[in-house]
Amino acid sequence: MPKVVQRIERAEEGVIDGLGRCGVATVHEAQGRIGLLGSRLRPIYPGARIAGSAVTISAPPGDNWMIHVAIEQINPGDILVLAPTSSCEDGYFGDLLATSAMARGCRGLVIDAGVRDVRDLTEMGFPVWSKAIFAQGTVKATLGSVNVPIVCAGAAIEPGDVIVADDDGVCVVRRADAASVLEKAQAREAAEESKRRRLAAGELGLDIYDMRGKLAAMGLTYE
Amino acid sequence: MPKVVQRIERAEEGVIDGLGRCGVATVHEAQGRIGLLGSRLRPIYPGARIAGSAVTISAPPGDNWMIHVAIEQINPGDILVLAPTSSCEDGYFGDLLATSAMARGCRGLVIDAGVRDVRDLTEMGFPVWSKAIFAQGTVKATLGSVNVPIVCAGAAIEPGDVIVADDDGVCVVRRADAASVLEKAQAREAAEESKRRRLAAGELGLDIYDMRGKLAAMGLTYE
Amino acid sequence: MPKVVQRIERAEEGVIDGLGRCGVATVHEAQGRIGLLGSRLRPIYPGARIAGSAVTISAPPGDNWMIHVAIEQINPGDILVLAPTSSCEDGYFGDLLATSAMARGCRGLVIDAGVRDVRDLTEMGFPVWSKAIFAQGTVKATLGSVNVPIVCAGAAIEPGDVIVADDDGVCVVRRADAASVLEKAQAREAAEESKRRRLAAGELGLDIYDMRGKLAAMGLTYE
Amino acid sequence: MPKVVQRIERAEEGVIDGLGRCGVATVHEAQGRIGLLGSRLRPIYPGARIAGSAVTISAPPGDNWMIHVAIEQINPGDILVLAPTSSCEDGYFGDLLATSAMARGCRGLVIDAGVRDVRDLTEMGFPVWSKAIFAQGTVKATLGSVNVPIVCAGAAIEPGDVIVADDDGVCVVRRADAASVLEKAQAREAAEESKRRRLAAGELGLDIYDMRGKLAAMGLTYE
Amino acid sequence: MPKVVQRIERAEEGVIDGLGRCGVATVHEAQGRIGLLGSRLRPIYPGARIAGSAVTISAPPGDNWMIHVAIEQINPGDILVLAPTSSCEDGYFGDLLATSAMARGCRGLVIDAGVRDVRDLTEMGFPVWSKAIFAQGTVKATLGSVNVPIVCAGAAIEPGDVIVADDDGVCVVRRADAASVLEKAQAREAAEESKRRRLAAGELGLDIYDMRGKLAAMGLTYE
Amino acid sequence: MPKVVQRIERAEEGVIDGLGRCGVATVHEAQGRIGLLGSRLRPIYPGARIAGSAVTISAPPGDNWMIHVAIEQINPGDILVLAPTSSCEDGYFGDLLATSAMARGCRGLVIDAGVRDVRDLTEMGFPVWSKAIFAQGTVKATLGSVNVPIVCAGAAIEPGDVIVADDDGVCVVRRADAASVLEKAQAREAAEESKRRRLAAGELGLDIYDMRGKLAAMGLTYE
Repeated sequence: MPKVVQRIERAEEGVIDGLGRCGVATVHEAQGRIGLLGSRLRPIYPGARIAGSAVTISAPPGDNWMIHVAIEQINPGDILVLAPTSSCEDGYFGDLLATSAMARGCRGLVIDAGVRDVRDLTEMGFPVWSKAIFAQGTVKATLGSVNVPIVCAGAAIEPGDVIVADDDGVCVVRRADAASVLEKAQAREAAEESKRRRLAAGELGLDIYDMRGKLAAMGLTYE
Repeated sequence: MPKVVQRIERAEEGVIDGLGRCGVATVHEAQGRIGLLGSRLRPIYPGARIAGSAVTISAPPGDNWMIHVAIEQINPGDILVLAPTSSCEDGYFGDLLATSAMARGCRGLVIDAGVRDVRDLTEMGFPVWSKAIFAQGTVKATLGSVNVPIVCAGAAIEPGDVIVADDDGVCVVRRADAASVLEKAQAREAAEESKRRRLAAGELGLDIYDMRGKLAAMGLTYE
Repeated sequence: MPKVVQRIERAEEGVIDGLGRCGVATVHEAQGRIGLLGSRLRPIYPGARIAGSAVTISAPPGDNWMIHVAIEQINPGDILVLAPTSSCEDGYFGDLLATSAMARGCRGLVIDAGVRDVRDLTEMGFPVWSKAIFAQGTVKATLGSVNVPIVCAGAAIEPGDVIVADDDGVCVVRRADAASVLEKAQAREAAEESKRRRLAAGELGLDIYDMRGKLAAMGLTYE
Repeated sequence: MPKVVQRIERAEEGVIDGLGRCGVATVHEAQGRIGLLGSRLRPIYPGARIAGSAVTISAPPGDNWMIHVAIEQINPGDILVLAPTSSCEDGYFGDLLATSAMARGCRGLVIDAGVRDVRDLTEMGFPVWSKAIFAQGTVKATLGSVNVPIVCAGAAIEPGDVIVADDDGVCVVRRADAASVLEKAQAREAAEESKRRRLAAGELGLDIYDMRGKLAAMGLTYE
Repeated sequence: MPKVVQRIERAEEGVIDGLGRCGVATVHEAQGRIGLLGSRLRPIYPGARIAGSAVTISAPPGDNWMIHVAIEQINPGDILVLAPTSSCEDGYFGDLLATSAMARGCRGLVIDAGVRDVRDLTEMGFPVWSKAIFAQGTVKATLGSVNVPIVCAGAAIEPGDVIVADDDGVCVVRRADAASVLEKAQAREAAEESKRRRLAAGELGLDIYDMRGKLAAMGLTYE
Repeated sequence: MPKVVQRIERAEEGVIDGLGRCGVATVHEAQGRIGLLGSRLRPIYPGARIAGSAVTISAPPGDNWMIHVAIEQINPGDILVLAPTSSCEDGYFGDLLATSAMARGCRGLVIDAGVRDVRDLTEMGFPVWSKAIFAQGTVKATLGSVNVPIVCAGAAIEPGDVIVADDDGVCVVRRADAASVLEKAQAREAAEESKRRRLAAGELGLDIYDMRGKLAAMGLTYE
């Protein structure tokens, strides 16, 4: 059953980059509060904000062989997304693999396991969102699959889906929904701008969103 | 039962600011090693050190409505302290709410749940101590209470208690004890200064604190 | 049974420093993928990279008395390694103890428990790898031991073993193996250099490591 | 500051026993969905259902001295409730202490830490709700307090509050509210009985609680 | 977007029941070591072994309204499978809902959250696999969906997929694969029987599976 | 480096069985409160109490090949003790391996990972202490070692050490210390017997252990 799917569909580059500019929280809201990967995935350094197409990897615990296989499938702008087949925090990925992935145009790695050489990765500017930072080495003994549907940190991901990642975590957008989600995300950003100005000026959300009546109706009392 | 208590007592501003300068570890020791919130609460960026009066929020899991209600109750110098009524890591708070809270003079947020927009919050200089960084959106459907006693990350907190927070975590000081705790904290700082100099000069704690006899009496042997 | 062993063997300074320059991931690989302490130990600030001889401490939960005892046993270049006798996250160590340890030439602390005063420690440049940052104070009431074999974060450590610690975590090298591990680590670094250049130039690991045949033989299929 | 409060108020025996018969879930609901201790507290054997007045213990990590002190304060029908001053899973309590507590009429133990001798405790019929089962022994070196307010597994508990515990966990009821909570709990039980019959007969909650209209109004669609 | 899909495809009853008899471990192996839900899901009592068609529920944290909606969609032989939209351990389900679900022919509940009234559920013989046992009540304020694809405890589940659950945990089998997986599972059982006899007679796996040569070839040495 | 040590020393059978009768808590205390494996190891069914000589296994994550190798090394009365080389909860062991191990006289398994087929194991009376119950299958692809020193759940274990396991967890006794620990454990049991009678009769530990004076001297006050 282990297999590599070589041809995957990707969203439009402009859409992907637009989603990246909106960021995780806005994109997540824009698509109806879905698509977040679990909060255990944290960036290895602050400030990175990326978006790209998912090249997915399903790999056995403690075995990073399939990352070598996956790197060949990377198109410029892609993001590697690895889910181990059972819970694992080993360091599947380090500076050599990052060097190779960057040479192929990879924008980053999302991994529900561990990563190592984080100082080198930080200096290289190769961002990683991982469950752990752990130097534990892995073997190359058992096959997995590349570009198959996976569940990573609780989110179902199809190859070619759009991954957005920043300091708030990681979000997935279905490839087919990417354009419409971008539209909603941009609308949301525009709407927030005026609210931000009013709030900064001291207006209350209670008034801007007209909440007082509903709160009273539901029984909130003031003492 | 959901309610908002509008009038709370606060400690003196000078006392609050003094406690903030002493920091969490010193204040915690000065009041007899009590008052710490659990270590799961971590700052979203390093270097913040604040103190303020607690405006408390008890909110349902995944529902941030009461934050809007609480913001109206903020006096300049206050700190929002939110405890969900059951374990939750959703992102109750982001840059819009921070904008609103800052406009009211709020010094920061302590939340036993999640927070989002952390890059924006960092740029705004609005410090948050939270259990998680997570973009998951919340609803506004169920009431909670503002300025009632809560338990946040294992510590009992009354509205108006003094909250001290820095890179070591978060500590609560009973409002009525604030002045005397400050006195003890400052005494402790003064006492530490001379010890620091002696230790830096190479003297041993074993000698400064006269421990050798007691260690031997209890049976410690040297080989 | 509580005891302090005063005379421990240490590895050669040159070997220790060489291991430190290689770093955790390389040293761990060079000795056959063993010796890592658990990933729950994280540095309190990024960028520190140290190596030194372990002065070990076995201490009761919530009792830091033995750290004072251990500091007397420090030689310049040593690293304190503390394992509580049961799970604990209290703040055993802060700026005063760090001042004392630094005065003795200590290079850092590895502790499977908590640490506090992390802003001061960061400013002092005293690195700590710990399970938690927590201000909770400790007592000095019950004896433990210094320079006895311990298990710290899942790794067995003998006094005088070489500790290597950096952003990837912490690794222990048996004192007697230190020289040969260094040799293998340096060989590994040299070998990686040429691979890094080839990967950066776009060659694939699949080809450099000649994996295609083996993958096919094991049944990997391409679609 | 360590102290023992010898005289505490207790709720009426009949009220306490009534709450015990209602059980944790019903009591928790009856008082407005408050008062639960964290789900990490689990019974050491199934089937126990108790209620009693809290004799509270605040004890240092790894130190069970105060349990001996607390046992003297037990009245028949009381329940010991222990919160360590920082996170700990040591085995504070075993068969000898249970023998002593039972001789005083104690109905059980609630402890946010560990317990041991669980086979003996099971045979003795002495129920314990704990965070861990762990044989790790404790010392008697540092004072704590008995019958002071504590926070146990996230819930604030006053000495003399009513503790209800069963297979669902542990709930605390304020002493002053006990009688009225019992009344509401019994009303709730009565009301549930008829619903249970209707549901068992195949009626749907959608109809019994008249939910269909509200669901439609909020936008739920059927495909 | 909240919706209820009323018509779902189910696998054949005979196939479902056959999978239930094989059990989780065998079914998981038979389909290529996939489909397990996370080990955090544990049965509330030992000995239950069920299989059925998934009626899926996506529900907000702390809100069990959709369970009422889902119960109407149950066919005899179905299993409810609930995934909260973010991490939650509240007690979504108790004896009243179980009464209602049983009246519809429901065989059990799989929930990546909490459950309560576990003594009643045990007496009723209504099995539940859950992340927590927790009495915390939930609200009925926010919509979710029924019979949509979900990710539950790390496994992707489609409505109508076959759920197998026993003391080893929970496994999902794609509806379309159910018949072929059953065939492989039964073949596996048959094959294991003869191995079991040989192993019971003292033969070694090393010999039965002919491992000695491969172990030696890979470098295993005997001392 | 993977190797199998075929000849290990074992403690005397009578001593081993004596330790088993004393149980984990008593043995742990008798040897100075050391030797416990972490509380995350729990028995798969209640009531088992065993002791035996450790046959140790160091195995890669998700790879149970070495268990087959280890079974050949079992002498009647031995206990298998497996530590994965990094954190893993896969089901390394099930009913077939248990059948094989029992045929060799194995008394049980201690594993810092997962186990499966727990209903079968329970019926067979083969006790297991594990970190998880999880059906996830493992591969046979990478070597490990048998009868080498390991760290299992935080405790250092040498092959041939005595393992004691019961409802309280698991404890290791150094082979060379086994006889003297047994002696101390039996003395402890004898001493406890009279204390148990006195406590059952209502005497207080405060008086039996003469604690009142020391408590007062340390500053405990009664109100």
